[in-house]
Amino acid sequence: MPLDESMIAEFRSAVGPEHVLTSPEDTLPYGFDGTATLRCSPGVVVFPGNTAEVAECVRIAGRYGAPVVTRGSGTGLSGGSVPVKDGVVLCLVRMDAILEVDPRNLTLRAQCGAITLKVDEAAAAHGLFYPPDPGSLKISTIGGNVAENSGGLRGLKYGVTRDYVMALEVVLPDGSIAKLGNGCVKDVAGYSLKDLFIGSEGTLGIVTEVLLKVLPRPAARKTMLATFEDMESAAKAVSAIIAAKIIPCTLEFLDGMTVRCVEEYAGIGLPVDCGALLLMETDGHPAAVEDEAACMVEIVREHGAHEIRTAKDAEEGLKLASARRSAFSALARVRPTTILEDVTVPRSALAEMVAYIAAVAAKHGLMVGTFGHMGDGNLHPTFLTDERNADEMERVHLALEEIVAKTLALGGTITGEHGVGLAKKMWLKRQMGDASYELMKLVKASLDPRGLLNPGKIFD
Amino acid sequence: MPLDESMIAEFRSAVGPEHVLTSPEDTLPYGFDGTATLRCSPGVVVFPGNTAEVAECVRIAGRYGAPVVTRGSGTGLSGGSVPVKDGVVLCLVRMDAILEVDPRNLTLRAQCGAITLKVDEAAAAHGLFYPPDPGSLKISTIGGNVAENSGGLRGLKYGVTRDYVMALEVVLPDGSIAKLGNGCVKDVAGYSLKDLFIGSEGTLGIVTEVLLKVLPRPAARKTMLATFEDMESAAKAVSAIIAAKIIPCTLEFLDGMTVRCVEEYAGIGLPVDCGALLLMETDGHPAAVEDEAACMVEIVREHGAHEIRTAKDAEEGLKLASARRSAFSALARVRPTTILEDVTVPRSALAEMVAYIAAVAAKHGLMVGTFGHMGDGNLHPTFLTDERNADEMERVHLALEEIVAKTLALGGTITGEHGVGLAKKMWLKRQMGDASYELMKLVKASLDPRGLLNPGKIFD
Repeated sequence: MPLDESMIAEFRSAVGPEHVLTSPEDTLPYGFDGTATLRCSPGVVVFPGNTAEVAECVRIAGRYGAPVVTRGSGTGLSGGSVPVKDGVVLCLVRMDAILEVDPRNLTLRAQCGAITLKVDEAAAAHGLFYPPDPGSLKISTIGGNVAENSGGLRGLKYGVTRDYVMALEVVLPDGSIAKLGNGCVKDVAGYSLKDLFIGSEGTLGIVTEVLLKVLPRPAARKTMLATFEDMESAAKAVSAIIAAKIIPCTLEFLDGMTVRCVEEYAGIGLPVDCGALLLMETDGHPAAVEDEAACMVEIVREHGAHEIRTAKDAEEGLKLASARRSAFSALARVRPTTILEDVTVPRSALAEMVAYIAAVAAKHGLMVGTFGHMGDGNLHPTFLTDERNADEMERVHLALEEIVAKTLALGGTITGEHGVGLAKKMWLKRQMGDASYELMKLVKASLDPRGLLNPGKIFD
Repeated sequence: MPLDESMIAEFRSAVGPEHVLTSPEDTLPYGFDGTATLRCSPGVVVFPGNTAEVAECVRIAGRYGAPVVTRGSGTGLSGGSVPVKDGVVLCLVRMDAILEVDPRNLTLRAQCGAITLKVDEAAAAHGLFYPPDPGSLKISTIGGNVAENSGGLRGLKYGVTRDYVMALEVVLPDGSIAKLGNGCVKDVAGYSLKDLFIGSEGTLGIVTEVLLKVLPRPAARKTMLATFEDMESAAKAVSAIIAAKIIPCTLEFLDGMTVRCVEEYAGIGLPVDCGALLLMETDGHPAAVEDEAACMVEIVREHGAHEIRTAKDAEEGLKLASARRSAFSALARVRPTTILEDVTVPRSALAEMVAYIAAVAAKHGLMVGTFGHMGDGNLHPTFLTDERNADEMERVHLALEEIVAKTLALGGTITGEHGVGLAKKMWLKRQMGDASYELMKLVKASLDPRGLLNPGKIFD
């Protein structure tokens, strides 16, 4: 059903005609995000330039009863910004200003469309640091990060996006504008609505501005890489590091298959016969970094690491880290369709989970490479497949079902950092249980009674 | 109106008659918490022994339409656990077990009634650390801490209770039991209902069990104390410490009036002619602690500190810290009624706020001592008054109104760590704005449509 022409005229008048796209060739790029196999054609894509225009667009859509899907750069990995067929897309990339860095209060204020990397660069100009570093940080927007509560490689020590959001400006489903939170380090006045909105994937409101906490930039950093015979040894080394009272900023792993793909892709000189690779990074006071790095090297050696490399400087550190940063791209080039999963288990169950995934893939005759955040228990099993092959896709879905069942049996979650979106909503109720799931639906129904914001996401 | 006898019989049958109190002399101690001037007599006090009994009690009260107020040790400072007249009090102190410490996953599971200090002691037995340390930690319960999102002296570096809650078991207003969150370090499956419940002051559900994140215990700690001519100099020193990229675990202040009361009370040997005292603590890697401590001493000296003391060992560190820990008790003994406030401003506005409070007190002829968390911008102006003197109380209320207006003008919050409860609800809407306040009411109405859980708290 094509959209009402008078609604489109209202959008043009609200944001300027040059900021409204309607032709199929123009709107096509806004029909998908970073998630494989999910796409849908929107009816109109609108680019508001400020909060008042976002609010006006929401009110216009509301008057016509049109569903609204908000997006930033579209790097999401759970289909959270895939449009509703013939619906409205609000794309917020024009609102990309860094508004203020306040070193005295250790805060940074930005519009929703600011690129994550630019946020950290703006902080760095004052010797400050915005820790969350999702894989897509070079193109993802901070508003999208908040909507998804994005993680990253430094989660073990520094936490995730939620831990850095002090306040939000949001446009509500009725087009009103609310401020949630404030610039105080501590605040317990009323419910933490800010926390309800973080990670709500655009289903409760539209984030238009953020006030972020930033930290002093660590004075030193050391990057190391170790390879192991198998994942079990790597996992035991990680447990021993934690038991030694060290919380490194990064403890990432690649399985053997991923190591081989990365080596073929990037030529870093990784040993391609290993069963697991561990990327370790510690940061902070120089003496603490030296001690922790030495201690981690000792521990991985005791746990049978084959090869241990310590970066001599920041440049070499980045090169070692690129082994992990390029994992997804390296895997993605092997076959036409890449299905990236995001299950997470308590840290102590990670080795068991990795072994289980490999066994399930073998059983179903599938190619899977697994990498992820070992310190966080957050795995990214990545199926290398071909969506044109119906039989193989069927086996992928069977394998995913088994992986999800095992994850939940281990007390895990279906998504550690990618969100539920369209891709995982069929499993959400099983994870949460009836009481929590119904509670969540109550909240959605009370805040967005007509269900116009990002309909079909999160909930079945 | 006395309570329905058959409801009381049902409570007796649910939890055992020995766990139900109804006579006025027995229920009297449950009629107030740590907040001055607020009290009310409950009709019945029930002590459930486990989650199923809590749920059964909520269902019983629901059938009779009786309001339920939950409490732990009753150390709250905003009247959040003051009963409804002739209503039901659920007191959860029997549910005080530490259920599990899991060093591999850095988690600790406890029942809601576990004492905060016992939680940290259980962690310490494994070399671990539960950082949030509210002033009442020797008697407060962890469930109460979660309900209020309690802070403490280490908030600047370590955050508050919210930052350590991974999962909750809660009893909902209809008596059903929900699990919110899980044991994963990262989890973005659905709305963060856990975060909605943390700090909701018992108005959305009853926390019965918590899964907490714990950290490795810092290897070293150093405590220092410095006195200044005035608060402005102390505040500038704090700004310079932050600008030097140091985030100490503690940066606490006392104003001159509080210093004199503390010295009279505890005889620590503090210089009673100073205008401000700063308590500083750094913890972590021994080398980092040495460096940071030396740097902080240098900075406070440059900012005109009169006297600087560095604790030689942990014992002396505790003695210096007692200057701050005993501030409230020292002030409380001066006059019959102690009204402890909790306004918080962005860190950079703290000195201005302290000066404003002193000026307002002088204008209204009131005694006030101010202490608090300088690094967090969290102040505790403490009015020393007498509730039997109506004229003086009127002036206290005028002064509080002016302090709140100034706080909000500076972008602050009416409560940094004590909660809204009964004591601050008249100011909440002014702080939040209409849109956020209405949103919060929507959430309450959808989760507790009959308004039976902790009625009259938070909302006017």
